[in-house]
Amino acid sequence: MNKGTLIILAGPSGSGKDTVMKELFKLLPDLKFSISSITRDMREGEVNGEKYNFITREEFESMIENKQLLEYNVYCGNYYGTPKAPVEKAIAEGKEILIEIDVNGAEEVRKNCTDYFSVFIMPPSFEVLRERLVGRGTDKMEVIEKRLEEAKAEMARANEFDYIVVNDDLMTAVQNFKTIIEAERCKSDRIL
Amino acid sequence: MNKGTLIILAGPSGSGKDTVMKELFKLLPDLKFSISSITRDMREGEVNGEKYNFITREEFESMIENKQLLEYNVYCGNYYGTPKAPVEKAIAEGKEILIEIDVNGAEEVRKNCTDYFSVFIMPPSFEVLRERLVGRGTDKMEVIEKRLEEAKAEMARANEFDYIVVNDDLMTAVQNFKTIIEAERCKSDRIL
Repeated sequence: MNKGTLIILAGPSGSGKDTVMKELFKLLPDLKFSISSITRDMREGEVNGEKYNFITREEFESMIENKQLLEYNVYCGNYYGTPKAPVEKAIAEGKEILIEIDVNGAEEVRKNCTDYFSVFIMPPSFEVLRERLVGRGTDKMEVIEKRLEEAKAEMARANEFDYIVVNDDLMTAVQNFKTIIEAERCKSDRIL
Repeated sequence: MNKGTLIILAGPSGSGKDTVMKELFKLLPDLKFSISSITRDMREGEVNGEKYNFITREEFESMIENKQLLEYNVYCGNYYGTPKAPVEKAIAEGKEILIEIDVNGAEEVRKNCTDYFSVFIMPPSFEVLRERLVGRGTDKMEVIEKRLEEAKAEMARANEFDYIVVNDDLMTAVQNFKTIIEAERCKSDRIL
């Protein structure tokens, strides 16, 4: 049996990361997803245990204290974090588990994990990114400008990742991501 | 343009390395092959400049002196080596160039090169390797036993390579090798 691995995925808002991920899971049904633990209120349409585990502040702080998180962060007064146990379980069972995270979170995870590789989803250009964010029509221009600033800062750190998948054409990006996962199964440290 | 890379390929006698390579070149016509320079006499059926460049002892020793080789070795009184220039040219042009070599040669090349990844072709088992070498029917048992000893020693060093391609089914092995090459094109240091 090959050894399992953690797949760290990041990419700026507007890179199409979520869509790439959704298509990837269709092609690789055995791929696990790392569910984040968070303390904010559940929003309409969200299902507990799907993308997030909604837990209390006390539960989260106990996880911090007991070093049960690969990384965590505070955003708008709420905790967001990656529980260690499911990742370690998946790797021990020889499975691949994907974690979607921002570049700072990715940096933390790398420090606390040995069996991983990392992928950065890159928009084809900064101009395309701007068009996509404006095209959504859901955000005010000042929100879009803030997102673009954040995206620029994230893209400048793409070199911290092992692989870059340029999301120009969606299915090409998904196929490239799948190819990376398949090639990584041939890594000597996964086999020996 | 993506950066080019050297692909270091090794694998024991009987691993099916040559057949895998032949099929791979059919699938990837742009892949370059690193032609070794050697000083032994040309054998029947060999073409100068195909797998080897046949050069004189003096020419070879001048290449050593001028540090124009990535690695070299002496075998049965003849020199065998990898010229540096074609590899550097291919990498500078953004191409992929494959070098077939033994594990000691691979170690030397790694020391003298920065842009590379390495692949070890592994027979499915030591028993299958024995069957293949015996099955060829071309060698005496003592030659086979010597090859098997060498193979065992080479296989023990598979961990020095980035990837391992198990050659159980030929076309699966070729496909895995191709997948590795395609995934490596997404490496951030090839793109940025």
